[in-house]
Amino acid sequence: MSNVVVTDCPRAARAVIDGLADCGVATVHEAQGRQGLLHSTLRPIYPGAQIAGSAVTVSLPPADNWMIHVAVEQCQEGDIVVVAPTSPADQGYFGELLAQSMIARKVRGLVIEAGTRDTAVLRRLGFPVWSRAVSAQGTVKETIGSVNVPIVCAGQAIAPGDVIVADDDGVCVVQRAEAAAVLAQARAREDKEAAVRARLQAGELGLDIYGMRERLAAKGLVYRDHGGSAED
Amino acid sequence: MSNVVVTDCPRAARAVIDGLADCGVATVHEAQGRQGLLHSTLRPIYPGAQIAGSAVTVSLPPADNWMIHVAVEQCQEGDIVVVAPTSPADQGYFGELLAQSMIARKVRGLVIEAGTRDTAVLRRLGFPVWSRAVSAQGTVKETIGSVNVPIVCAGQAIAPGDVIVADDDGVCVVQRAEAAAVLAQARAREDKEAAVRARLQAGELGLDIYGMRERLAAKGLVYRDHGGSAED
Amino acid sequence: MSNVVVTDCPRAARAVIDGLADCGVATVHEAQGRQGLLHSTLRPIYPGAQIAGSAVTVSLPPADNWMIHVAVEQCQEGDIVVVAPTSPADQGYFGELLAQSMIARKVRGLVIEAGTRDTAVLRRLGFPVWSRAVSAQGTVKETIGSVNVPIVCAGQAIAPGDVIVADDDGVCVVQRAEAAAVLAQARAREDKEAAVRARLQAGELGLDIYGMRERLAAKGLVYRDHGGSAED
Amino acid sequence: MSNVVVTDCPRAARAVIDGLADCGVATVHEAQGRQGLLHSTLRPIYPGAQIAGSAVTVSLPPADNWMIHVAVEQCQEGDIVVVAPTSPADQGYFGELLAQSMIARKVRGLVIEAGTRDTAVLRRLGFPVWSRAVSAQGTVKETIGSVNVPIVCAGQAIAPGDVIVADDDGVCVVQRAEAAAVLAQARAREDKEAAVRARLQAGELGLDIYGMRERLAAKGLVYRDHGGSAED
Amino acid sequence: MSNVVVTDCPRAARAVIDGLADCGVATVHEAQGRQGLLHSTLRPIYPGAQIAGSAVTVSLPPADNWMIHVAVEQCQEGDIVVVAPTSPADQGYFGELLAQSMIARKVRGLVIEAGTRDTAVLRRLGFPVWSRAVSAQGTVKETIGSVNVPIVCAGQAIAPGDVIVADDDGVCVVQRAEAAAVLAQARAREDKEAAVRARLQAGELGLDIYGMRERLAAKGLVYRDHGGSAED
Amino acid sequence: MSNVVVTDCPRAARAVIDGLADCGVATVHEAQGRQGLLHSTLRPIYPGAQIAGSAVTVSLPPADNWMIHVAVEQCQEGDIVVVAPTSPADQGYFGELLAQSMIARKVRGLVIEAGTRDTAVLRRLGFPVWSRAVSAQGTVKETIGSVNVPIVCAGQAIAPGDVIVADDDGVCVVQRAEAAAVLAQARAREDKEAAVRARLQAGELGLDIYGMRERLAAKGLVYRDHGGSAED
Repeated sequence: MSNVVVTDCPRAARAVIDGLADCGVATVHEAQGRQGLLHSTLRPIYPGAQIAGSAVTVSLPPADNWMIHVAVEQCQEGDIVVVAPTSPADQGYFGELLAQSMIARKVRGLVIEAGTRDTAVLRRLGFPVWSRAVSAQGTVKETIGSVNVPIVCAGQAIAPGDVIVADDDGVCVVQRAEAAAVLAQARAREDKEAAVRARLQAGELGLDIYGMRERLAAKGLVYRDHGGSAED
Repeated sequence: MSNVVVTDCPRAARAVIDGLADCGVATVHEAQGRQGLLHSTLRPIYPGAQIAGSAVTVSLPPADNWMIHVAVEQCQEGDIVVVAPTSPADQGYFGELLAQSMIARKVRGLVIEAGTRDTAVLRRLGFPVWSRAVSAQGTVKETIGSVNVPIVCAGQAIAPGDVIVADDDGVCVVQRAEAAAVLAQARAREDKEAAVRARLQAGELGLDIYGMRERLAAKGLVYRDHGGSAED
Repeated sequence: MSNVVVTDCPRAARAVIDGLADCGVATVHEAQGRQGLLHSTLRPIYPGAQIAGSAVTVSLPPADNWMIHVAVEQCQEGDIVVVAPTSPADQGYFGELLAQSMIARKVRGLVIEAGTRDTAVLRRLGFPVWSRAVSAQGTVKETIGSVNVPIVCAGQAIAPGDVIVADDDGVCVVQRAEAAAVLAQARAREDKEAAVRARLQAGELGLDIYGMRERLAAKGLVYRDHGGSAED
Repeated sequence: MSNVVVTDCPRAARAVIDGLADCGVATVHEAQGRQGLLHSTLRPIYPGAQIAGSAVTVSLPPADNWMIHVAVEQCQEGDIVVVAPTSPADQGYFGELLAQSMIARKVRGLVIEAGTRDTAVLRRLGFPVWSRAVSAQGTVKETIGSVNVPIVCAGQAIAPGDVIVADDDGVCVVQRAEAAAVLAQARAREDKEAAVRARLQAGELGLDIYGMRERLAAKGLVYRDHGGSAED
Repeated sequence: MSNVVVTDCPRAARAVIDGLADCGVATVHEAQGRQGLLHSTLRPIYPGAQIAGSAVTVSLPPADNWMIHVAVEQCQEGDIVVVAPTSPADQGYFGELLAQSMIARKVRGLVIEAGTRDTAVLRRLGFPVWSRAVSAQGTVKETIGSVNVPIVCAGQAIAPGDVIVADDDGVCVVQRAEAAAVLAQARAREDKEAAVRARLQAGELGLDIYGMRERLAAKGLVYRDHGGSAED
Repeated sequence: MSNVVVTDCPRAARAVIDGLADCGVATVHEAQGRQGLLHSTLRPIYPGAQIAGSAVTVSLPPADNWMIHVAVEQCQEGDIVVVAPTSPADQGYFGELLAQSMIARKVRGLVIEAGTRDTAVLRRLGFPVWSRAVSAQGTVKETIGSVNVPIVCAGQAIAPGDVIVADDDGVCVVQRAEAAAVLAQARAREDKEAAVRARLQAGELGLDIYGMRERLAAKGLVYRDHGGSAED
């Protein structure tokens, strides 16, 4: 079980990735059958970013960020780096200098099941990070790990080249081989939702649009007037 | 103990509700004797909203949002929907489409002891939510619950029609029958605070304004000079 | 072990303090050998503040804020008040009126291992607070504590007059006697980082700038081509 | 909203209470339609206790245990004291001396949404406590609260005289007026479970006993052979 | 991505599994290069159990335990059932009746990233469970999932037939194909530790046994006499 | 700020230490004015141990246990090793072999603001540990720290040679210079409690023993009869 860096992993098509970014996490997650959502403990360091990219995965020891430096070299335009320590330790593994290096390679963002720092600068640079903590506590560079091997990050199995979608709602992974199909389903879902949205905005009720009343009654739901008055 | 939807619950007077919104959570909570504050685990999904409204209560099973659809029909202008699962489960029970439907009915916001999603859109729509989590994980529509029954949400007993006040400091419930009295006390408190504020801004000390020195001395507080210098 | 207020504690030089503020938490923390970082559970109530100041320390009983009122009198321009309850209790010990009083004395901010309230007003006033919770739940004024004694706050020992640095990354303490030396090291670090930043922005890799390749190979890191294609 | 001690609250019949104790929390909770379970953050300080009793409720300020002393006088044989601070603070409100006093009055145990101490002695005395924390940190006796008023404890509304059931699985509340009916349902449930238990022990599958196979197929569940071998 | 039950998954050899149980979690985890440890949030419901078995994996919806009933039929002697909800929800998915059914099939225990109940009975039955919570809150049987598909449980990817080792220290997964090799390494480690143990018990220091002194000195570790006395 | 091992630190008198162990954490903590209690997140790995000893302090990097090996050499009979990582990381820093080495030197136990493992063996060996987590995840030996320097552990400042008291209620530190005085106060407290205990066991109320009734009335406490009956 030696430590390895896997090079030249295949990516999904750029147009598919960008389409998934447009749909956003909640829609993509529903579209693929409620699979692939990372734990909600991962939060964006600033609101408003909405991205998708190809996963460059990093498995590293707790409190040691050496392998992120190694991973940068494996990054291409449009990638998202996904980092998981082999056991939980929420130091700040990532900061401005690593971000500068990733920006130079056109990386779109970072997802890390641990901590990040230099958050004010990252916000100014427009480099989004989804992390479990913000911590100025640095890490060491003593022990190696692996890049572009399958990892588990925040509860989801992620392979290199999988598509990562991230926005204010969280982070979702789409398997590379399914990305195009999921995008098609996501767009179909958006079309359907657009129709429903218009009816809801016009004041129609979901109870009627979705035809729920009969099934609710069958389950035994009872309506009863309060019987009180504004005075009681 | 059948599941029920109670209709036409009485509300407090609109002017009282709006007055409580102006006062804000911290003042209202103090004014009613430090009663009714929901746990601080409920946080706003974006900063700056400050609202009050009449509670439409929703008790629902974990990971099932069916009853929120049912609750929309019971909402009137000026209401706030308050949702508590019967056991903890932080999925995203609420998102953009339900918000559109509530906005169409002039609902002012949502309080949920669980998760919400589509937070970027909710911020753009100006529909505030106080929740325990943000999660894109959806829910099912399989099991019914109740609407407008007494519930416990984030540690407080809430009856339908109670006044909910919510801002960046959290969420507070005021019993409907006490709302007018609490508003009067809150305004009295604001007047008193305005006088103190002016004196504090002018540099007077709370120790003197509140007359604390004597009581502190009686408790045994001792003042002692450090005895060091800027050089030590 | 009587309760005491220590007066006229020495402070570090203003220029040193302001220099440490410019460097920020992550740099200062690294510059002093990764010492002095408070737990990352302390978070700013709004993003963007970056300050440094001399600690006025407050040790107080849980759910009792009396000693903060006492501490205000001990504050000078450029101070930061640092509050730790003797056992954990996350009520809101601090709000707008205390902030007005501190602003009148030119205090720069507050660090508290507990809760704060009136956060929307504090943001408008530009008075930053780093706290473990936001809570509108008030406190009592029944039991005394101490001001300007050594305390432990969020995992760090803090003496009165120590320099506190706080920004979006968290809070760090620098011992007063070491402040000038730490500033010198922080500035040296910034100079060094500026050079590295320029090279990273130009596309050089940290692997080369830091000369990591040989040591990684010695540790046994292996590079292996994926062997797949964009189609698989 | 003055502070009050309500005396001579009615209790449920002793035989009903003892019957509920025999059934245990999981069965009682199911029998009353999955209502009334306190949050699972409440844990017993030692394993093996299984009790039921009439609630003597205590609402008290954070970090102040004065009202527990007041509550002891209101206790009768067979009671369980239920304590909830008005805001969260996990000090040790309860220890050996209060337990001795409650044992002298034949109280059966304590439920507290906060901390307890002297746990080794309590175990030796056989006085069970369900609490959120164990803490040797004491409390003050400065501020009053109320005894035998309706409270919310660990997420459930509890009225004085309600029946509390507690064992290794947690704590459940049964409204006094429903206790006899819930006991009848719990016993019916036990009888039904005994029959199922015998069949399961004999090797029958729940799939067959509960007749689940058809409904699973209707939902679309597919069975597929692994196709591998012990060698692969 | 339809829901599926995979049947007749291959298992590792019984002797290998039992050998891994003898070694225990800490040794097995070290022996396979510190891979495969589940999050320490999983805790045994009673101390003292130490088991290993073949994983029967269960992926199920939050707050719904239907698929555990389905999984029982797939169990053989020596198996351990491993359950992960598709999103976090800590209800009690498992209790005495399911345990009776598993005991009838000679299942060795259960690992669940959620809650369990009937813990006192499970302890009496000697059926160990490692879970994230104890909760009497039941679940529904409304939505299907899958059995014997790859899952992520408490941060680790687990395939059906993988060997699960569990004791008071936690839970570890060993891939089926590596089980024999890992056992060999674990036994070698135990032999080596036995030799070190004897020397440590005789009073030798690890500093000397492991030859650490030189490397510590090279890192710059300094020894300094305290210089105080018992009187100071 | 080099890393250092301080040797031959003075200890408190053995008889004083043993006396503090007899009194236990809750009594000692009260006796020294409610100072020195470590956070209640530190829990014993098995119930029933009650010890005191002289602190050998260890400051070490996260996820690196090298300095515990160094600390063993500094231990004498009657010591307790107290370990705090410089930033939070809950791996298992301590296990059976280190325990064997400490037992050979007659160390009484370990306090660690992190994780431990081999807990079943430690229980059999009778070597108690108070820790924040149980984790089989090992650590590295790459980076040095310090032994017998002042540290902060679980919220308390601890100097080498301070007396540590630990039992099922938690962990408390007594400064070495104050140990004899604190013991005297603790014994006085025990005598006083013995008298109160006898009266409470005889059925007297704390309300009367402590003379609380007048002060409660002065605070405004009101008694009111329920007015209901057992039938309502």
